[in-house]
Order: sequence, then C-alpha cells, then structure tokens
Amino acid sequence: MPPPRPWVLGIDIGGTNVSVGAIPFEGGRPLGFHTEPTDAGRGPKAVVDRVVELVRETIREVAGEGGGALREFAGVGIGSPGPLDRKTGTVISTPNLGWRNFPLRDLVANALGLPATLDNDANAATYGEWWLGAGRGARILVGLTLGTGIGGGIVFDGELYHGMTDAAAEIGHMTIESTGRKCKCGNYGCLEQYASGPAVAARAIEGIEAGARSILPEMVSDLREITAQTVFEAVVKGDPYAAEVMKETARFLGAGVASLINVLNPDRVVIAGGVTRAGDHLFLPLRDEVRRRAFQVAVEACTIVPAELGPHAGVVVGAVACFKKETYGSL
Amino acid sequence: MPPPRPWVLGIDIGGTNVSVGAIPFEGGRPLGFHTEPTDAGRGPKAVVDRVVELVRETIREVAGEGGGALREFAGVGIGSPGPLDRKTGTVISTPNLGWRNFPLRDLVANALGLPATLDNDANAATYGEWWLGAGRGARILVGLTLGTGIGGGIVFDGELYHGMTDAAAEIGHMTIESTGRKCKCGNYGCLEQYASGPAVAARAIEGIEAGARSILPEMVSDLREITAQTVFEAVVKGDPYAAEVMKETARFLGAGVASLINVLNPDRVVIAGGVTRAGDHLFLPLRDEVRRRAFQVAVEACTIVPAELGPHAGVVVGAVACFKKETYGSL
Repeated sequence: MPPPRPWVLGIDIGGTNVSVGAIPFEGGRPLGFHTEPTDAGRGPKAVVDRVVELVRETIREVAGEGGGALREFAGVGIGSPGPLDRKTGTVISTPNLGWRNFPLRDLVANALGLPATLDNDANAATYGEWWLGAGRGARILVGLTLGTGIGGGIVFDGELYHGMTDAAAEIGHMTIESTGRKCKCGNYGCLEQYASGPAVAARAIEGIEAGARSILPEMVSDLREITAQTVFEAVVKGDPYAAEVMKETARFLGAGVASLINVLNPDRVVIAGGVTRAGDHLFLPLRDEVRRRAFQVAVEACTIVPAELGPHAGVVVGAVACFKKETYGSL
Repeated sequence: MPPPRPWVLGIDIGGTNVSVGAIPFEGGRPLGFHTEPTDAGRGPKAVVDRVVELVRETIREVAGEGGGALREFAGVGIGSPGPLDRKTGTVISTPNLGWRNFPLRDLVANALGLPATLDNDANAATYGEWWLGAGRGARILVGLTLGTGIGGGIVFDGELYHGMTDAAAEIGHMTIESTGRKCKCGNYGCLEQYASGPAVAARAIEGIEAGARSILPEMVSDLREITAQTVFEAVVKGDPYAAEVMKETARFLGAGVASLINVLNPDRVVIAGGVTRAGDHLFLPLRDEVRRRAFQVAVEACTIVPAELGPHAGVVVGAVACFKKETYGSL
C-alpha cells in the first residue's frame, strides 16, 4: 500500500474532453485543473501522452519544479468510458474513443511513476458526488450523468457497486421503449436515446421541422447546430416550445429514474451533466413524473437532486475517490 | 435469539393461494405441506385464522400431537405481497388482497406462540432459490416470479437486498414502454403488463380476435377462459400461434431482463412461475433477446435459468430462509 501523501491526482478521459487535477488527500476542490478537447482521432497513444503532459503541469503547479515534487502525490485515479476491467486496468472497448483492449492504467502509471487505478467515468462521477458532492450521507445512491451518452453509478453503504465484471450501472442502456430508437449499443429504446444531450437536440429539431414555433431557429444559422445547450438557453429565454422539449426530456428521464427507484429503493438520486443546468425546468417535471410512476413508499424515501461538482471536476474528484478507496480501503 | 430447533415453518400468503410447510432447520424439502385458495374476500382476519389452522396441521403432521410438539419449531417465516414493513411486520397495502396496514406478522406469531418474520413473497422466493434452488452459489442473483403479477428479488453476497424501505426489487414495475399499457400500480408500460400470466393470456386473446389461427379457441368454451397455462399447453401441442405468443412474451421479458443485467451485472437470473414450464419455448428466445440487447461483457457473466423449487414451495422455503437469516444472521 503506497503511503498517504498530501495530494491525489485525478484524470477524466471523456469522448469530448480530457480533464486533470489534484485533490487534497482529505478531499477538496481540484487544484492545477486543466481541461481540453480529447481529439480522439489522434489515437490512444497520443491521447495518453497528452494527458500525461497535462498531469505533469498539474504536478508542477501544485508542488513546484523540484525533484521531490512527485513525492507529494499518493497516486492517480483515472475515469474512462467503459466497459473496462478494473483488475487489469484495461479499457475493453469505447465506442466514442474507438479504443479496444487498451492498457490505459499501466501506461499512465508507468509514464508518471505513480500507482494508478481505473474505473468507469460515470461510476467515478457518482462516487465523487457521494464523497464531496450532492450524494454526501446517502446510504443508497444512484447517479446519472447526462451528456453525449447517459452513464450511471450506484453506491451502497459507501461502496461503489461494480457487479460481476465491472459492467454494472449502465443506466443509460435500460430499455424504456422496447421497440424504440436503435441505440449505438445494439439495443432498442435505451434511455440514452431519449434523454442524452444529442437526443434532446434531435427531438427539438424534429419538432421544428414538423412546424413547431420556437426561437430556436433564430439562435442558430443551421438547425443541425441546435444542441441540448441551445435548448436550455431557449428555455431560459422563455421559449414555450423549448420548455416543452425539456418537459418531454423529464418525462423520459422520469420513466428511467422511476424504474431505478422501484428496483433499488435508494435514498438519493443525483443527476449530473449539462442538461441539469435547466434546473427546475428539468427537476420539477422530473420529480412529478417519478411520483406518478414509482411506488409511493419508494418515492417518499428518495430525493432527486442535481450534482454539485460540475461536469469536468466531477469525474476528476470521483476518480480520486476511487483511487483512495481501492488503495486504502476507505475515503 | 430463539434457540435453533429441528424445524422452521414457512407461510406463503398469495393473492390466489396460501401455502404452508415445515423445512428442516438445515434445509430440505417442505414436510406437512398444504396449499389452498386464499379466498381473500373473507377479509384478512379470516385468512389469518385459516392459515394458522393449516400451520397447526403441519405441526401435528411433522411433530405429533403431544404438548411438546411446538418445541420442535424455531419459528415461522411469512412471505406476503408488499409493500410491507419488515421491522413492524406490517403489510402496508396489497392490491390483490385488499389489506392495508395489517399487522400480519404479530397476529401469526401470537396465534402460534412462535417468533415470526415477514418479507415480500418475491424476495422470499428469490432467497429460497439462492439457499436451496437454482440460485445456489450465485454472488449476485436476480430473481423474477411470473404469476398474476411479476415480482422480483435481489441477493448480493448471500444478503437479500431490501433498499431503504423494503420496497426494492419491484422488477415487474420497471417501465419497458414509457407510454404503454396502464398498470394497476399507476405507472404506464410496466413489464408486468406484458409478461405476467394475465398479460400473456390477454395478448393471445387479442390476436385470436384479430383473426390469428390457433387451436386455442378449441381448448376453451369461451375465449376469456384462456390463461397463460392454456397458451403453454397449446405450445406443447405444437400450435405455432401459441409458440409465437410465447416468443413475444420472451421478447418483452428479455427487454426487462436486459435492463437488469445492464444495471446489476449479476452472475445469475432465476425465473420462477407457471410460464417457465414452457421451458425452452420461453428460455431460448429469452436468452437470444437478452444477448441482442444487453452489453456483451455483462451477458457473458450471467446465466438465465428456471427456478427449481416450484411455484408453491418456493415462497415457503424462501420465507424460512428469511426467518433464519433475520433471526440467526446466516443460513
């Protein structure tokens, strides 16, 4: 077991961005935080080289230039899209990055000369919320991350739940329409196809093409430029159509969250990701929908809240939590 | 803690039948087994009185008439539809029985003069399969019971999972069609509305009314007499339409099981209930559907098998397992 040291490094390798930062061993906001586009097209080796460079910058910023700087760091937690194998530290496959059987953990550990752990990014985000965010104190926590895809995490009594083969909590791939939209994963009607960022944008565009009145077309030069972010901005500007799209998103999301509440009976559901900036425009109809769908005794036991750590810092903080838990057995 | 004694009694209170039996403390098939219609219309008090009579018969059959017979029994495990509160031993509400806030456990315990525990019937059935049935040796076990409704149970490392308020594992009320059939629970598109016994029968009848060719109408005097059992018998007789209905059932069930596999990544799924007597007619298309829908790494980790303990004995054995676990901390 490596000795505890003042800092732990966290890495978030996402389909769109990579982020790195250092967290105080006992917890806190990330220092030496960097985020930049992943540029996955360069191939895995180039991405890892660049991430290692960023981490070295973080190390310099936090502990200075000296030869002893590295001894300030206990190790590195890495969050990556899955499926992956925590034991071998290998990413098995990532549709968004195009990696297959890639020994991510050991490449990073060897390049930096520090022990490292690897976990699923959405698992990490959920564990980070449990450690230092909106999931603090929850006994049974379910986390959802709404982004390009929908990820998930489950924490039971302070332990991240991984299932038999690190494939658990793929919440975005619960079926909410058994004959619905085809998903990248091969399944039909996955929650991700209705409530992820691109799904929100696609539904908004479909409605406008079918004649819905909205300020959305004025906000872009081409309808295809509409993103979930655009929809959110239109909601804030008071556009009733955008608000309706957001409500519809909440209804789909509510079907998924209600299923999770009926199956896991948690005390908290934390939802992370850009769409959650819609705030009450999302959370009020979401809570209504869940109340309408799930068992009363389970609904009453559970609060549904937005994440606190932010889209980039969340996985970095969570990856550090995973490193601490795997390495020292506790947070 | 009551001392371990040679026998533990088990009670299954179902919407259709009640069953009782005695299980050897170390496990085994039920002795003094009785099952008869619940006749819920008589009201809860009459049902409990009758169940207590049946249990007294079981006690006589297993341990004789003598005054010391009761000392052969460690206690009573009760399985009942939920939602319920294990701590107070109260059934909160049961749509099928019409009971509300009914102190089932203590009524039974006081009438018999034995300690008793109460758990959800589908939880019990799953735990029974883990103890002595098709779930033996599984580390993460998901159980489904297909009957009038669809119940569920989850066992993690030998512990039945109850969630925050004993409402967990309501697998029949996962949404598989977010705008689908209205369910008794208030939700829309619950798995139960597509793959329970009555749902299988309803789909079979709808198809025949729409002109499908089948031997099913010849098997009954009125289409409304068709049950899942009739459909199963027609499948065995080689009726292609009935086989198609069974395949469709497998597809709906597969959507639900795939979601569970994506979320819980278990090593075993055990399916109990009358419909499972269709054997390969159900399980082959079910496994195909799950393979088509769920993540490969999760599918490969999991076997999907029929329950072994039988529809009546399952809950009785499982209720005994729950009693032993709650009372002695292990099985």
